[in-house]
Amino acid sequence: MTFADLRDAVCKANIDTVRHGLVKATFGNASAIDRETGRVIIKPSGVPFEVMTPDDMVIADLTGGAYDNRLRPSSDLDTHLVLYRAFPEIGAVVHTHSTFATIFAQARTPIPTFGTTHADYFHGEIRVTRNLTDEEIRDRYVAATGNVIVEAFEGRDPLEVPAILVAGHGPFAWGRTPEEAVLHATILEEVAKMAWHSMMLDRNLPPISQSLMDRHYRRKHGTGATYGQD
Amino acid sequence: MTFADLRDAVCKANIDTVRHGLVKATFGNASAIDRETGRVIIKPSGVPFEVMTPDDMVIADLTGGAYDNRLRPSSDLDTHLVLYRAFPEIGAVVHTHSTFATIFAQARTPIPTFGTTHADYFHGEIRVTRNLTDEEIRDRYVAATGNVIVEAFEGRDPLEVPAILVAGHGPFAWGRTPEEAVLHATILEEVAKMAWHSMMLDRNLPPISQSLMDRHYRRKHGTGATYGQD
Amino acid sequence: MTFADLRDAVCKANIDTVRHGLVKATFGNASAIDRETGRVIIKPSGVPFEVMTPDDMVIADLTGGAYDNRLRPSSDLDTHLVLYRAFPEIGAVVHTHSTFATIFAQARTPIPTFGTTHADYFHGEIRVTRNLTDEEIRDRYVAATGNVIVEAFEGRDPLEVPAILVAGHGPFAWGRTPEEAVLHATILEEVAKMAWHSMMLDRNLPPISQSLMDRHYRRKHGTGATYGQD
Amino acid sequence: MTFADLRDAVCKANIDTVRHGLVKATFGNASAIDRETGRVIIKPSGVPFEVMTPDDMVIADLTGGAYDNRLRPSSDLDTHLVLYRAFPEIGAVVHTHSTFATIFAQARTPIPTFGTTHADYFHGEIRVTRNLTDEEIRDRYVAATGNVIVEAFEGRDPLEVPAILVAGHGPFAWGRTPEEAVLHATILEEVAKMAWHSMMLDRNLPPISQSLMDRHYRRKHGTGATYGQD
Repeated sequence: MTFADLRDAVCKANIDTVRHGLVKATFGNASAIDRETGRVIIKPSGVPFEVMTPDDMVIADLTGGAYDNRLRPSSDLDTHLVLYRAFPEIGAVVHTHSTFATIFAQARTPIPTFGTTHADYFHGEIRVTRNLTDEEIRDRYVAATGNVIVEAFEGRDPLEVPAILVAGHGPFAWGRTPEEAVLHATILEEVAKMAWHSMMLDRNLPPISQSLMDRHYRRKHGTGATYGQD
Repeated sequence: MTFADLRDAVCKANIDTVRHGLVKATFGNASAIDRETGRVIIKPSGVPFEVMTPDDMVIADLTGGAYDNRLRPSSDLDTHLVLYRAFPEIGAVVHTHSTFATIFAQARTPIPTFGTTHADYFHGEIRVTRNLTDEEIRDRYVAATGNVIVEAFEGRDPLEVPAILVAGHGPFAWGRTPEEAVLHATILEEVAKMAWHSMMLDRNLPPISQSLMDRHYRRKHGTGATYGQD
Repeated sequence: MTFADLRDAVCKANIDTVRHGLVKATFGNASAIDRETGRVIIKPSGVPFEVMTPDDMVIADLTGGAYDNRLRPSSDLDTHLVLYRAFPEIGAVVHTHSTFATIFAQARTPIPTFGTTHADYFHGEIRVTRNLTDEEIRDRYVAATGNVIVEAFEGRDPLEVPAILVAGHGPFAWGRTPEEAVLHATILEEVAKMAWHSMMLDRNLPPISQSLMDRHYRRKHGTGATYGQD
Repeated sequence: MTFADLRDAVCKANIDTVRHGLVKATFGNASAIDRETGRVIIKPSGVPFEVMTPDDMVIADLTGGAYDNRLRPSSDLDTHLVLYRAFPEIGAVVHTHSTFATIFAQARTPIPTFGTTHADYFHGEIRVTRNLTDEEIRDRYVAATGNVIVEAFEGRDPLEVPAILVAGHGPFAWGRTPEEAVLHATILEEVAKMAWHSMMLDRNLPPISQSLMDRHYRRKHGTGATYGQD
């Protein structure tokens, strides 16, 4: 994929988050990284999705150094950069305030693996970050948001559970490509909606068995995957 | 109905599950059987619904033996085959992860007959299968999913309650034709949504009376049916 | 309004119930009465809404005697007839299985006047009928459904609260015209949705004060109404 | 902005409340004030949104004195006037019966700041007014509705939390322009929906920290704002 194609894909990912109902107003942003050159492409800040074009995308390096951009980057840029530095496996990040994922983030409640819909994409529960301290909020808030996400993944492969809930804020999802990151954000929202309603039926509902979790996840992921066409 | 017509109907049924909001991403699959020749027609695995054509449908015999297909069948094929072998009355099967039916499947909670909407199509509660054992999940998972469905119908006519909830997974529905199977999957979702909300108003809500159940079901089904035009 | 215009309006009312999301599949039916001639116009049974035309409407007299019709009437005709005989003020009836109104009907829970949205159209709580007896269900089920509605309105003006919930079944709404009956069915659904969620926040929520109820209802209805243009 | 432009913007704001799903039937109204001349522009009463044009807008002065209008003003005009007199900072008011905001108004439950979606637009909880007395309802109901809103803002800047819930009725939102007032009404509805579901997960859920509240609100508002383009 050329750099121009990747920029087109980032613009499309931003628009798709709106099209799938994950983003209202200007809440939310998608980015991708070109790992060869270390350049990050991200949505501009506060530009309406209806008029956004690939030309509006903002380019930065991994330390936040900006290239020659017409527009300011998304105010969440530093969170994306922390994730790209900490998770070398990922190629794209999507942040939304999608309704049910945000509800769990607000209630600081992780989303257990209640069914195979969840296990088809996420190999285990969706975690919630710890709250940020007052100091973190004051000093380097956006980067600190990335840091608490990375903390929550200690000892865990970020591609096995490609999403997190930031406490009191909302979800971040990622993947190898912008398309995959949007898919994960979309599935996360549906999984959150079903988990919420399942918990209302039974407040002590246990997750599905580890073997069912593994069976579904491995059907779609890794060397033994059998799902789809060659 | 010719075999070509049935293949068109299976393709349409797959697309209709998306159109009715029952299927997101590539979750879900519809199939039908030509009882004269024993040939089963099913969705291919992981092909986006937007580009699917009748030519993409996959054909198998009742033991899973494949005909000369361009594409791999849905990974759930073996579940469909078990149902066609066990339930000779049925002609089509639809599997979805529709939101509210899946919520009940996840909570392992059957759906009682709370109203006439339910009784118009399902003659009694929608059951939940037992959980699969670790051994079943490991060895012949997809066929075992069919087996626990058949178990749940011991002594019960599969056309009287043409749907089931697979524990921790989601619903399967069926009918004599693909169109009927899609209708049952659609009504099931609406019935599940209304049952969920009714239970929140009253956690001990009893089902409607047996005579009201019978009255509504018999109005639309069997030799005494009076509903619709001739 | 000519009889032909009224027939067009009945057809449109049936289609509007689908357009407003109140009716799925073929659940639901709308009718009107021409009070001068005593002729009732109603939807045919089981005809898909997408292909329905004014020519498909069925005409009956107030005792159910049929005129020269091409199609069978809605299987709920007798309920409509009972309402037209008992409530001479009303000119049209709409029956739906709209989601939240049906949820209250299933839970046999009346909808209290929790807000002014309710009071703008319904002057007091939406009642639930008693359950039908086994005998009523067996012998004259459809007419008996009308009878329990009439029972629930003893001493109450059917135009002051132009809707009812039939226990275990769903809502009926009415008005002076087909358009008004559809409007009442639409507002009822929204009011039911808001009442359900309000009750979840507070299970002992009291209704608004009688004076607020009266103020809003009288603003839109009766000789002192000030709402709208002349 | 010329007076004609402002009138166009008020008409558009009324139509946008429908387009965003905040208003059903004819519930709801938007207005704006031209502070230089003291003229208020508001929706006419009971005119369907589908046929409304800028020419239909009604003009009044701050005491309710009418200019030469073709149509009657919204029956809520006096509430808008009270707000314009008490809050000189605001330029537009939007009243809706949007589903979740109305649910909180009906349950007389304020909406705490559970997340950053809330804090991005509202600097603290959304309050509920006190109930109106029977006397207020009888004598000057519409103006009294404005008075209890103003009461609820004693000592609070109306632009810091540009919305209120009127007990047993529904939300009012405002802003410097019609576009901003509609945006606030839209965000309020989404925030209310997420708060409702968060409270169901945890009935004792605390709000986010004051520092997180301040950080998000100040990012978008005031002299230190960094969000968006110049």
